[in-house]
Amino acid sequence: MAQFFDVETLEARQCLDITHTVGELVRDSGVRRGLCHVMVLGATAAIVVNENDDPAIGLDLLKALEKAVPDHDGWLHDRVDNNAHAHIKASILGPSETVIVDEGELLLGTWQGLMLVELDGPRRRRRIAVEVVPSGS
Amino acid sequence: MAQFFDVETLEARQCLDITHTVGELVRDSGVRRGLCHVMVLGATAAIVVNENDDPAIGLDLLKALEKAVPDHDGWLHDRVDNNAHAHIKASILGPSETVIVDEGELLLGTWQGLMLVELDGPRRRRRIAVEVVPSGS
Amino acid sequence: MAQFFDVETLEARQCLDITHTVGELVRDSGVRRGLCHVMVLGATAAIVVNENDDPAIGLDLLKALEKAVPDHDGWLHDRVDNNAHAHIKASILGPSETVIVDEGELLLGTWQGLMLVELDGPRRRRRIAVEVVPSGS
Repeated sequence: MAQFFDVETLEARQCLDITHTVGELVRDSGVRRGLCHVMVLGATAAIVVNENDDPAIGLDLLKALEKAVPDHDGWLHDRVDNNAHAHIKASILGPSETVIVDEGELLLGTWQGLMLVELDGPRRRRRIAVEVVPSGS
Repeated sequence: MAQFFDVETLEARQCLDITHTVGELVRDSGVRRGLCHVMVLGATAAIVVNENDDPAIGLDLLKALEKAVPDHDGWLHDRVDNNAHAHIKASILGPSETVIVDEGELLLGTWQGLMLVELDGPRRRRRIAVEVVPSGS
Repeated sequence: MAQFFDVETLEARQCLDITHTVGELVRDSGVRRGLCHVMVLGATAAIVVNENDDPAIGLDLLKALEKAVPDHDGWLHDRVDNNAHAHIKASILGPSETVIVDEGELLLGTWQGLMLVELDGPRRRRRIAVEVVPSGS
């Protein structure tokens, strides 16, 4: 079974650092070397890797996306569900990231972390799936 | 050998749901748990994960990309081959997606599906490669 | 241990073809079939797959990103470190790509190559990590 965890989002758009939780699941897996895949199971959120030290970077990312993809711009899906912009941004960022596992830990640069990007919140439960695949002996 | 399948695209820009075909290849592989990687073998198309229930979402995505990356805007590659916009969009969306395999099936959210995004069609044959890697015992 | 290599970038923004180096690491790994994951260990650079035959495509990509994400636009992170635009673009492109390994080689389309995208250079050393995971027998 893949591993799962839930995150609550409190804002309409928000970046949340999930590096620590994913790192614990990697340690729990016992895998020393391989790949860790992290995917959000929703079509209006995304997973990215970026700096997590200055939270302004997440805000800047959300602002840049809002400028490129306005909330409402005659999107066809807004007739069905008023969140077309969130689907578009989620496709551009992508729902998942893969991180190398090295010596039993996530292999990230000093300034890199894993973030959930909420694009259509708040949501009580954003479900995230994690799978760790070993590289073999 | 990786597994392959071809898709015909009928429009210059088009989103095509490939979830069912990829899901069958996962079942054929016999892998119960692991990762499934799906990649289009062309530099002017992309693979994304998004909602496949309302086809308007694909049209909205294509429209947003066209606004951000106009068909012609003094792109240097247009002097060689008149499709620079398609290469740019393909880099932004990415040529591939990885989906977790859980209990022998693609692990996707209720509203998530795998889509081929044609950016320089129509093409009689867009070749897509699929590899399923088991997580071990 | 994952495998690593360093690339020097000479421009503020630059696309560098790394297909050959990654292909050699795949051959060194001895893996005949599986997945190769390539990740840059920095939050202001990215890895993309695109055509590497016409270098204009990389320049067009950088220009399109500059238009969508201006160098300075009131970004909050610019108060800390004057490179918010590079973090935003890196999140949009993503830090990594996964490529299928087939018959011991990277499985890429005729016009596809792996590129490092420098967004905040020049840097004497951009570290890139590579992990090759076999698909099993």
